Amino acid sequence: METEYFENIESNVRTYSRSFPVVFEKAEGARIWQKDGTEYLDFLAGAGTLNYGHSDPDLKKALLDYIESGGIVHALDMWTQAKHDFYKAVEKYLLEPRGMDYKIQLPGPTGTNAVEAALRLARRATGRHNIITFTNGFHGVTMGALATTGNSRFRKAAEIPTLGAQFMPYDGYMGEGVDTLDYLEKTLNDSSSGIDKPAAVFFETVQGEGGINVASIAWMQRLEKICKAHDILMIVDDIQAGCGRTGKFFSFEHAGIMPDIITNSKSLSGYGLPFAMVLMRRDLDVWKKGEYNGTFRGFSFAMVTATAALRKFWSDDTFEKEVQRKGEVVKERYQRLARMISETGHPASERGRGLMRGLDVSTGDMADKITGKAFEKGLIIETCGHDGNVIKCLCSLTITDDELGKALDILEESVREVIS
Amino acid sequence: METEYFENIESNVRTYSRSFPVVFEKAEGARIWQKDGTEYLDFLAGAGTLNYGHSDPDLKKALLDYIESGGIVHALDMWTQAKHDFYKAVEKYLLEPRGMDYKIQLPGPTGTNAVEAALRLARRATGRHNIITFTNGFHGVTMGALATTGNSRFRKAAEIPTLGAQFMPYDGYMGEGVDTLDYLEKTLNDSSSGIDKPAAVFFETVQGEGGINVASIAWMQRLEKICKAHDILMIVDDIQAGCGRTGKFFSFEHAGIMPDIITNSKSLSGYGLPFAMVLMRRDLDVWKKGEYNGTFRGFSFAMVTATAALRKFWSDDTFEKEVQRKGEVVKERYQRLARMISETGHPASERGRGLMRGLDVSTGDMADKITGKAFEKGLIIETCGHDGNVIKCLCSLTITDDELGKALDILEESVREVIS
Amino acid sequence: METEYFENIESNVRTYSRSFPVVFEKAEGARIWQKDGTEYLDFLAGAGTLNYGHSDPDLKKALLDYIESGGIVHALDMWTQAKHDFYKAVEKYLLEPRGMDYKIQLPGPTGTNAVEAALRLARRATGRHNIITFTNGFHGVTMGALATTGNSRFRKAAEIPTLGAQFMPYDGYMGEGVDTLDYLEKTLNDSSSGIDKPAAVFFETVQGEGGINVASIAWMQRLEKICKAHDILMIVDDIQAGCGRTGKFFSFEHAGIMPDIITNSKSLSGYGLPFAMVLMRRDLDVWKKGEYNGTFRGFSFAMVTATAALRKFWSDDTFEKEVQRKGEVVKERYQRLARMISETGHPASERGRGLMRGLDVSTGDMADKITGKAFEKGLIIETCGHDGNVIKCLCSLTITDDELGKALDILEESVREVIS
Amino acid sequence: METEYFENIESNVRTYSRSFPVVFEKAEGARIWQKDGTEYLDFLAGAGTLNYGHSDPDLKKALLDYIESGGIVHALDMWTQAKHDFYKAVEKYLLEPRGMDYKIQLPGPTGTNAVEAALRLARRATGRHNIITFTNGFHGVTMGALATTGNSRFRKAAEIPTLGAQFMPYDGYMGEGVDTLDYLEKTLNDSSSGIDKPAAVFFETVQGEGGINVASIAWMQRLEKICKAHDILMIVDDIQAGCGRTGKFFSFEHAGIMPDIITNSKSLSGYGLPFAMVLMRRDLDVWKKGEYNGTFRGFSFAMVTATAALRKFWSDDTFEKEVQRKGEVVKERYQRLARMISETGHPASERGRGLMRGLDVSTGDMADKITGKAFEKGLIIETCGHDGNVIKCLCSLTITDDELGKALDILEESVREVIS
Repeated sequence: METEYFENIESNVRTYSRSFPVVFEKAEGARIWQKDGTEYLDFLAGAGTLNYGHSDPDLKKALLDYIESGGIVHALDMWTQAKHDFYKAVEKYLLEPRGMDYKIQLPGPTGTNAVEAALRLARRATGRHNIITFTNGFHGVTMGALATTGNSRFRKAAEIPTLGAQFMPYDGYMGEGVDTLDYLEKTLNDSSSGIDKPAAVFFETVQGEGGINVASIAWMQRLEKICKAHDILMIVDDIQAGCGRTGKFFSFEHAGIMPDIITNSKSLSGYGLPFAMVLMRRDLDVWKKGEYNGTFRGFSFAMVTATAALRKFWSDDTFEKEVQRKGEVVKERYQRLARMISETGHPASERGRGLMRGLDVSTGDMADKITGKAFEKGLIIETCGHDGNVIKCLCSLTITDDELGKALDILEESVREVIS
Repeated sequence: METEYFENIESNVRTYSRSFPVVFEKAEGARIWQKDGTEYLDFLAGAGTLNYGHSDPDLKKALLDYIESGGIVHALDMWTQAKHDFYKAVEKYLLEPRGMDYKIQLPGPTGTNAVEAALRLARRATGRHNIITFTNGFHGVTMGALATTGNSRFRKAAEIPTLGAQFMPYDGYMGEGVDTLDYLEKTLNDSSSGIDKPAAVFFETVQGEGGINVASIAWMQRLEKICKAHDILMIVDDIQAGCGRTGKFFSFEHAGIMPDIITNSKSLSGYGLPFAMVLMRRDLDVWKKGEYNGTFRGFSFAMVTATAALRKFWSDDTFEKEVQRKGEVVKERYQRLARMISETGHPASERGRGLMRGLDVSTGDMADKITGKAFEKGLIIETCGHDGNVIKCLCSLTITDDELGKALDILEESVREVIS
Repeated sequence: METEYFENIESNVRTYSRSFPVVFEKAEGARIWQKDGTEYLDFLAGAGTLNYGHSDPDLKKALLDYIESGGIVHALDMWTQAKHDFYKAVEKYLLEPRGMDYKIQLPGPTGTNAVEAALRLARRATGRHNIITFTNGFHGVTMGALATTGNSRFRKAAEIPTLGAQFMPYDGYMGEGVDTLDYLEKTLNDSSSGIDKPAAVFFETVQGEGGINVASIAWMQRLEKICKAHDILMIVDDIQAGCGRTGKFFSFEHAGIMPDIITNSKSLSGYGLPFAMVLMRRDLDVWKKGEYNGTFRGFSFAMVTATAALRKFWSDDTFEKEVQRKGEVVKERYQRLARMISETGHPASERGRGLMRGLDVSTGDMADKITGKAFEKGLIIETCGHDGNVIKCLCSLTITDDELGKALDILEESVREVIS
Repeated sequence: METEYFENIESNVRTYSRSFPVVFEKAEGARIWQKDGTEYLDFLAGAGTLNYGHSDPDLKKALLDYIESGGIVHALDMWTQAKHDFYKAVEKYLLEPRGMDYKIQLPGPTGTNAVEAALRLARRATGRHNIITFTNGFHGVTMGALATTGNSRFRKAAEIPTLGAQFMPYDGYMGEGVDTLDYLEKTLNDSSSGIDKPAAVFFETVQGEGGINVASIAWMQRLEKICKAHDILMIVDDIQAGCGRTGKFFSFEHAGIMPDIITNSKSLSGYGLPFAMVLMRRDLDVWKKGEYNGTFRGFSFAMVTATAALRKFWSDDTFEKEVQRKGEVVKERYQRLARMISETGHPASERGRGLMRGLDVSTGDMADKITGKAFEKGLIIETCGHDGNVIKCLCSLTITDDELGKALDILEESVREVIS
């Protein structure tokens, strides 16, 4: 009945409630409970928003303290104590250890707002309109971000053509043995390629929505060289892959590259709160007063929990090692599942970096069957990829070994049932 | 020193910290405190985000209860108890009393996300790309919304042309005696006007950023008639003027018109939390699954406080009558100030609706002097309009008479000092 | 049968053969003959392309001499004797007498190519993308020109939105007593008008396709002042109104204004040959080598006949006085027709400048009936305006008084038959 | 002195007069004469406009007869005897022998007008906005065509982004062993590729301006299969490669493919006269009356000479065999030149189809030196390719063996001098 109520009042645009058509009430860590008490393990984790799990107790405490003490909730982009503490934490835990002389912009508290700000800044700093983006990339659906988003579902729904971006094949897009950067480099060297000289290349190091496509270290390093050779900015969209998801705070650290502009959101608050940040190389801060704005830029609660999260998880390398270790666990289990499925004659494979991993089962149909079974058994897990053919592991990074094992067991059972 | 710290680490794009260059720490109701304890009356109120003041105690209690009880913080667009309660409240306090058969979409939690969703929906529902927007309108700065935003500061900073909207003169734009809808109607009746037949007209009933420009009742009613005659949708952006600011929950209620699509944000959560909602006439819900998305759509905390706010303030007409009464108070004082200034030979005038009022002092220079003085005396108040020439009253609607009087006294003193 | 043949092989896009569904074979001066010998007076004159009539004998002789002597037909944009002579004639008969220090660009030989070149040059010279264009303007249908063309028939057929132009109300668009430049000036003075600061204003002094709408002298002079005050270029599209049509070679001469860029085509060759020219103030020639091109730029035959035409008609003011005199004749007769029609209760009026005149009979239906009757009686005359409601006089400027009288008599008979 | 005159009065946009800074006066067949009588062999031939040489005597006679007999010069798109004869010739010599049930549209008489018409028609017929175009393609510079043109010189000069097209790598673009259609096909099969489903693919079978890049037969056949599989239209721009240039009237005949829409211009008139044609599969003629227009569509003189040219050269296969034979001659000589240059350590190669051939000498610098020497010795020949690195043979197809030999000797001498 409640579900009928929702279906009647809520726009047809709704998505996740179609896969998980129940009403949730509480959540903690890696677990989430339906109203009637049914428990689920959460391998969706807010599509990468809950890297530290639901309602981490230390972050919760920091937030409650802030609220109870009368801390400011909303202050536009004025200076507050909460912002001061957050900037200090960004400096201490992120910028200084990595030798980054970057400035901070807090746009509206969603990923797409950060993306729009980053693209605009790159255009302003270079005076060029074109942005190189990549197949299967997802960067948001407001019109500026949509121009860089590959998914046709969103692109068609826009009803007007997008402007200002050019798609290029992502690493691996053309299969083994093809270095897709050859095409990018060729077009940049060819004044008649039709690809207007870009302001920036813009990419995810691991594509989340696009199917857990992983850019190789070599590909990223070559991309950085190309950018430098052609005086093009490099922007990494670290909204889904950042905040430790791949085993480093910034996902590009694995490649030893240094983007000129970085977008963060999703797990940045650490607590599931709307928040977004743009980091820019100091000399690129060509913004003039108020050229980009938004009512909720710099949400205080998010700054409070983000500060606590940076302190708790990023003061040394314990946490990132844990993520890497658990990533290996998932990798092995996913590889085993891939073998199990492949042995039935249905091609399947595993890929990923850190705890951002995908099990590609070739068809959306099979992926849906497996995740459907898993949901029945108490595991919430979503699919991604152009056909929904990839079963995505986005479990919280703080998941216990026990929970992780249990979730993977459910997944394995589900696979077995589907392939048998 | 702290201000230097901020200036060094924060992007030059920062805005409000330039007018109010101090560090704030706490806030309650209509008051906000600097870290050193200095108190200010807040007539900025989050640019219309804090209609119920900072940290309303009942909303605070609801939020704390929710957090402490382990309520879900982030659930993508899945169904939750918090969402259920919020939808019920929207139905009970907003839709049913007004006879509205509308569906709800929760986009990313910022106004610009809601605007992009609303415009896209209108295009999809009509198959037309053009949107009629108005001079001095402000609807956000992501590329789709920017196309409908008049301010050249944002438009120029985009570095690429916007697509899909056409500006028309807002009510009063051409001065007394010119009904600006004549031009709109003429172009719609003329197949060679160059104005592509629009999907929708899109407007604020009182333009906030644009200078507290007030659309007259007659103008809005005629606009609705034109829309119906030409089979064009009407979208009201009620992000700043809604949630009671003008003395009714929806600002268009004064005109007895009924838009096809409505965008809300800013004060919707009632607590300064990021939140946004699109209401659409039931038959316009042509969205297909997942055609518009966003990580933070339907922020749980905001749904909790919004529910509490709807219950507290909108179960009868007490609150809206209070707002109307206080609006008259501001109106009279602003008119007095306008006369005082005009008598010095500097033209000034008052305008507004409810507690959304402006004192137009003709030049940004004089407005800055007055608001600068006011800040020194403990009143935070901003300017708006194309030259920053309008001193905007966006005080919390829950301000006490005492506080309101005090704030207006400060403003009057500031005016006196500037004009003497 | 021949008409069936045509209908079968020719695209449905065909236009004039629907109004005049016969096969023409020969033409001379103001007369055109069907294959079977039926004679027509031609008040269409190539939609303004045959200002000097069909096959003027002196121009014909110049062309035949050139062809027979082995003159170059096609030479891309290389220098030829024919081009040399044409440039000299432009200098002698057009630029020098008017004190114009302008440079010449010969784009592809159609009006729309000239328009695209002119708009691009204005954008390049100012670094701004926006072009102000006017309601009911027609400037061509290639995508760059289409952005400035008001007619919805072409705009809708494009299937993608146009980019880079903003429509404004043309003189008289809002009826008597409204100076439409008030709106333009207001938006230019208002940084939040949504009208991006334009590179140029672009207009016809008399709108041909749009319905023989005549910009008043005062309007054009004010427009020039506005352009100068705001550092905006003025481009006059003199493709239809130029080459003497209004009684001066350049139609803007009546207003004593001096556009920064001028486009010419249609009657420029004097002989109905494809040809187009852009004149630009010397300092605006910011083009770099080969930034705009086209295979047929500077068509030799057209340069030969254009040179002859300039010599024959523009060495003194005899010709322009003749045009003005005949214009008065048409004006009086058209006014009489307007009165005749109005007396039947059907509103009608006359307007125009020189021999570019229109009889507005309020509806396309009545206009079609009249021109249909006229065709039966041996007069080819077309309609224009947003509803096809204006009967256009575009007779050749060299028409004899006798022919002119006869044509106007036919028109009068046709009117009488329709209104009785 | 005359050259100074030209430099002073003519816009800086001029191109060919920079390479050949003399004043030409007469031309016949493959020869062109400077005013002082200096003779040149013409290997430029109007950039492919003079396939039958300058002023072919039979075409000249047909034109003179038409003019002298009082034939109509300009008739908008009305039906004329000249048009009737031209359509009959198109049917007899082009459509019927190839079994093509196509309709004819005559747009404005330049290639870019035909391209704009073709793209618009494809969009209208499919309701999709995207057009797939290819690296190094050149299709004109009006804004709609420019969107499909790769050359950055034109693209940058436009100052606004283009809309509605997506570039793909042309055959051979990624070097030996890479089938560039893999990328196109992959993106079409991938709903997240970012490449909006296209209305059409649009290409030249041999890229003229782009550097005589030749699409292989297999590549074109595969492209046709991909188009059919994905319900995408195929448009061949045969403006430069058509009219016999490659040894067949339509350049795509070599591949046995059948495009849905074909654009022709340049040599279509056979006499260097402005002319353009769009051929469309009968069922694609979704145009409605007058949705695309232009003053000079269907230029009578061009229809007269085009009719004569079709009759003279295309009534049997004698002419195309001659072209193929001469093509082999050029091929051998070009290959020898390539070897000569390569032996000096400077890489060079030959490519082409029919009499559309290029000698790629790797750098624009060397190409300029060679063509500069050739000009001194009496041969006009241009370069193409992204760096101007390809020496293009576009000699008239009717060139005598003697002239051809002499021209190639001059080129060889020029090469020898440069490499020694």
